[in-house]
Amino acid sequence: MNLKFQKAQLVNALGIVMKAISTKTSSVILESILITAADNRVVLDATDTELSIQTEVDAIIVNPGGVVLNAKLFSDIVRKFDNTDSLIELDVDKDFKTTIRCDQAIFNIMGIDPVEFIPMPQVDRDDFIKLSQFSLKEVIRQTEFSTAISDINRMMGGELIDIKDNVAKFVTLDGHRMSIRNIELNGSFENQRCVVPIKSLQEVMRIIDSDTQKDVNIYFSKDHILFEFDRTLVLSRILDGEYFRIETMLSNDYDTKVTVSRNRFQSAIEQAMILIRENEHKPLILDIENGTLTLSVNSSLGFMDAKVNIEKSGSDLKIAFNPKFLVDALKVIDDEFVDIYFTNAKSPCFIKDDKNSYTYLILPVNFVG
Amino acid sequence: MNLKFQKAQLVNALGIVMKAISTKTSSVILESILITAADNRVVLDATDTELSIQTEVDAIIVNPGGVVLNAKLFSDIVRKFDNTDSLIELDVDKDFKTTIRCDQAIFNIMGIDPVEFIPMPQVDRDDFIKLSQFSLKEVIRQTEFSTAISDINRMMGGELIDIKDNVAKFVTLDGHRMSIRNIELNGSFENQRCVVPIKSLQEVMRIIDSDTQKDVNIYFSKDHILFEFDRTLVLSRILDGEYFRIETMLSNDYDTKVTVSRNRFQSAIEQAMILIRENEHKPLILDIENGTLTLSVNSSLGFMDAKVNIEKSGSDLKIAFNPKFLVDALKVIDDEFVDIYFTNAKSPCFIKDDKNSYTYLILPVNFVG
Repeated sequence: MNLKFQKAQLVNALGIVMKAISTKTSSVILESILITAADNRVVLDATDTELSIQTEVDAIIVNPGGVVLNAKLFSDIVRKFDNTDSLIELDVDKDFKTTIRCDQAIFNIMGIDPVEFIPMPQVDRDDFIKLSQFSLKEVIRQTEFSTAISDINRMMGGELIDIKDNVAKFVTLDGHRMSIRNIELNGSFENQRCVVPIKSLQEVMRIIDSDTQKDVNIYFSKDHILFEFDRTLVLSRILDGEYFRIETMLSNDYDTKVTVSRNRFQSAIEQAMILIRENEHKPLILDIENGTLTLSVNSSLGFMDAKVNIEKSGSDLKIAFNPKFLVDALKVIDDEFVDIYFTNAKSPCFIKDDKNSYTYLILPVNFVG
Repeated sequence: MNLKFQKAQLVNALGIVMKAISTKTSSVILESILITAADNRVVLDATDTELSIQTEVDAIIVNPGGVVLNAKLFSDIVRKFDNTDSLIELDVDKDFKTTIRCDQAIFNIMGIDPVEFIPMPQVDRDDFIKLSQFSLKEVIRQTEFSTAISDINRMMGGELIDIKDNVAKFVTLDGHRMSIRNIELNGSFENQRCVVPIKSLQEVMRIIDSDTQKDVNIYFSKDHILFEFDRTLVLSRILDGEYFRIETMLSNDYDTKVTVSRNRFQSAIEQAMILIRENEHKPLILDIENGTLTLSVNSSLGFMDAKVNIEKSGSDLKIAFNPKFLVDALKVIDDEFVDIYFTNAKSPCFIKDDKNSYTYLILPVNFVG
């Protein structure tokens, strides 16, 4: 095989597939990438067995063929070539001895036969939806935090993607809180439902653009979900089993409704968190009265008290939360003001908007006072 | 005590004194700052016993007094106040209970009696030199890397500052290499010679500006060195004992002189370093012939060979180095081309300029070939 690359294009493509390279593997193949030149296309492949990424890169194909190279080593070599106009030449002999050449520098490293590589599973491409790259990136960012990696309940480490009519619902929950985002789809698609490991979605989020004009096609098959965008495929296993019955956790009843400046509320909570040492589990107490929300924390470091203006309807209420859970939700909401619905000090609160585009459920904690 | 601060000014002053706060201490005092309001001045103090920093901050003094506060907690609280025009109020009662107030947020934390604090030692201010902040910052950056923290030889963890006539010489060495920078002083000063812990100089480097127009006064006393700039004092203990006899390590003889583009040489070495795993200690071999310097590395990861154009006078030479030592020196030289002087494969090389502003000595390593 003999290929010639432009540095910037090769660096970019390597950056994409390397998201599937696990740093914690002892398998030579799982820390390597497959380079294949065939049918006038050059394709890079990487996999950690749960997640597989494939991307196409422009190159001059002098001789087609394939090789498996250590991902980090190859990427370090390519990135360290001077940013000249010269092409980077990759030359692989029949024993997979690999020469990488650019200007006056030559590297010789050992490659591996491509037959050793784990190929990306083929999946049906019958059922799919289409989203903008921007929307997919946003929705993952707005929900990824309320997951928990747990051997006891693997579903908490996943995100539910639930397509019904023309709405895509994304849900995560970790036992203390739940995040729901609804996205209206352009067009109507077959109903679909699957739970994707959050790590896979986070890698997708890191690769895709924030471009509202470019789309992602998402394909659903029995064991896999496939994201197709630009010249890249990301394939992830899905989690096996039933997701939680989230409808039973939701409610539209409330006794207290608070409207507050998201920014002011968030920054008051962040102030309070200064006094809470990790592992101290001190609650943030919210005291809701007409016109004023008083936040307070009393910890081994000191006492803090802050007031925030609110609009309130319904009863007064004193309720306590893990402040981090409130901040996590507020941080990913773009609205200037948020509505928060409470029932009593033992029941979850809901931060949600009128358009039903988001719902963040947070369980309160016990407190003395 | 009752003081009122502007947030930006207080944050800036805290950032300066916190450079003397050790994160590894179990002493309550060493992780605290002293705030003193007296004689119409507000001063912040911090110390780790080796290094003490004092800085003045603008404030409205409603009532003078003093308090010792946990540095991280106080700084976190101050930084988290919204960036409003409101002043931050610090109120300390007779039991050192401290209230910090800004807008609608109030913090109560416990302070400590200032008598518990370790005061900054008084030093004579008779002997001093004057340097621009820019020069001092640069010279520390250009020499700090060739130091070694070692219990066996504490001097290697320090930097020699040697004032003779109107030249300030800064020297570090770690057993494998030595860095020397000479700065011409404006005016002539008393001869001085002391060895300063490199950590102290690094903190000074982080605090001072890159401003060529602003000066630092450096005072020398028996046990201490004192840096005075802007509204800040940094006092460091100096190391006790004799520094190495560096003159015996220097030489102006050579058999081979190479002139090379600093940038090209550095980037070729950095390419070669990709093939060297940490702890593998593989040498970089330099093969010097007329017109061409060939760099090569042969390691468990592969083989690399790069050529760089040079001007050479004297004999051809094959010599090997720890490539990191070459890069460390090249990185802090600003010249477009550097001159490197060699004697033979067992003797140190010298990277130095005609103006005697820098000399970097690097010992070679053994190699097979």
